[in-house]
Amino acid sequence: MQPKRLAILGVGLLGGSIGLAVKSILKDCKVTGYAHRAETRQAALDKGAIDEAYAEPADSVRGADLVVLCPPVGKLAELLSLIAPALAPGAVVTDVGSTKREIVAHARQVLPAPDGPWFVGSHPMAGSEKRGVQFAQADLFQGALCIVTPESSTNPQALRRVGAFWESLGMWLRYLSPDEHDRLVADVSHVPHAAAAALIALQSEQSLALRGRGFVDATRIAAGDPGLWRDILLSNRDNLTTGIRRLQGKLDELVKLVEAGDGKRVEEWLDAAARRRQTL
Amino acid sequence: MQPKRLAILGVGLLGGSIGLAVKSILKDCKVTGYAHRAETRQAALDKGAIDEAYAEPADSVRGADLVVLCPPVGKLAELLSLIAPALAPGAVVTDVGSTKREIVAHARQVLPAPDGPWFVGSHPMAGSEKRGVQFAQADLFQGALCIVTPESSTNPQALRRVGAFWESLGMWLRYLSPDEHDRLVADVSHVPHAAAAALIALQSEQSLALRGRGFVDATRIAAGDPGLWRDILLSNRDNLTTGIRRLQGKLDELVKLVEAGDGKRVEEWLDAAARRRQTL
Repeated sequence: MQPKRLAILGVGLLGGSIGLAVKSILKDCKVTGYAHRAETRQAALDKGAIDEAYAEPADSVRGADLVVLCPPVGKLAELLSLIAPALAPGAVVTDVGSTKREIVAHARQVLPAPDGPWFVGSHPMAGSEKRGVQFAQADLFQGALCIVTPESSTNPQALRRVGAFWESLGMWLRYLSPDEHDRLVADVSHVPHAAAAALIALQSEQSLALRGRGFVDATRIAAGDPGLWRDILLSNRDNLTTGIRRLQGKLDELVKLVEAGDGKRVEEWLDAAARRRQTL
Repeated sequence: MQPKRLAILGVGLLGGSIGLAVKSILKDCKVTGYAHRAETRQAALDKGAIDEAYAEPADSVRGADLVVLCPPVGKLAELLSLIAPALAPGAVVTDVGSTKREIVAHARQVLPAPDGPWFVGSHPMAGSEKRGVQFAQADLFQGALCIVTPESSTNPQALRRVGAFWESLGMWLRYLSPDEHDRLVADVSHVPHAAAAALIALQSEQSLALRGRGFVDATRIAAGDPGLWRDILLSNRDNLTTGIRRLQGKLDELVKLVEAGDGKRVEEWLDAAARRRQTL
């Protein structure tokens, strides 16, 4: 069930960490990698994250039984289209993208044959603010959650192979439909990112000079790569917009209670959040 | 210039830490403390944060040349009224409250005499999510910022004594009017607290199960004591409301750009926040 030849397309922090993890855990698996830049290919080879480096996506996947797409979300669809003709008939393709509806729908068009090659969407919830293969770690996925996003039409064997792969890297699995995934991560990841960026946009130099540790922690996520996040937000725009409107509604509730001077209900509103936060 | 007899009213985390710091730095200063609960008084004595404990606020301030009020914000005004008749003529009173307009205005009524006792508002920006004298630390204030909030009518000598006191504990000083203080901390502290609580209120059990480290960091401040924060928010309601409306406006901007699919401007919006956050 485990791959004999794994292709990783995009060997940055995530792709590089997958390579390192596979090479430390799955001893008989050859790992090939694609990266656009020669410098990145060399760094991935030097780090030992891949065995062979390719400058063309299609070349890197020839003969691979498992392919993991690790580019920024905005490049996923294009990359899948590029490699589709070169995939082996029994190959399984998955990805690490932060949104799932777009790439899963695209895969349905690009890889329509019921006999394979097959696509199964994944979202391993591990990472770092850091970027680049130089920060890759073999244990990045150990103990973390991976969401796998089958549709009703997903091939069951391909689904099992993708699940088994993430489990072999030490991840916990959770299955959600692409719709559910995108709705839930909008609330717990994309809306918080937007809120953190808006909190920074609110500040003057004067107010920033008064920041405490609370503000610094609350806004850390807003330091994330703007190009990456642009693609994530655009790819999940309906859920993002709905989530932001609901967040604004929660704030409207608080404003109403504060303006009414309703101390009891202001405390209840804060207490509900504090209790919930304390359980995390 | 340094106090010979310091009274600390409210010996929790902040009051207890002031006592420990003074006793380690100002060797000749006697420290008295008031706490409502006998258990707290005993804990503060046991910890060595105070030399003498009193069950009545007025008793604790008799003969003190410096008084620091450390109750929750909602109890500040009442406490100042209680001790006013017992203050020595040359005594200086300050506080550690997170909002300043209310207590400074109250002090103007309660301590009107130009010859003292005098009040000068302070907001030492140090603390912890932890509560209680058992978590007090002598070095809590070392290297942290203290905002001191004089008005035009503030006695210059009292202002110097309060500034020198916080400096002796290792703090950096910054002077702001009570109005400026409350406006700036609304943006950098109170609005972020409201946003963090609203982000939690947004979640379902399903979405919370998908939380990453980013969400956990972004919402840490929402675990703060609801009773304390109720008083802070109510005492700064106009600035809080204005700040929340501006935050909602920043989110409206993003929604508009995302709905228009304007990738270039979405990235610019995110980039401005990311760059600014990276400088913190």
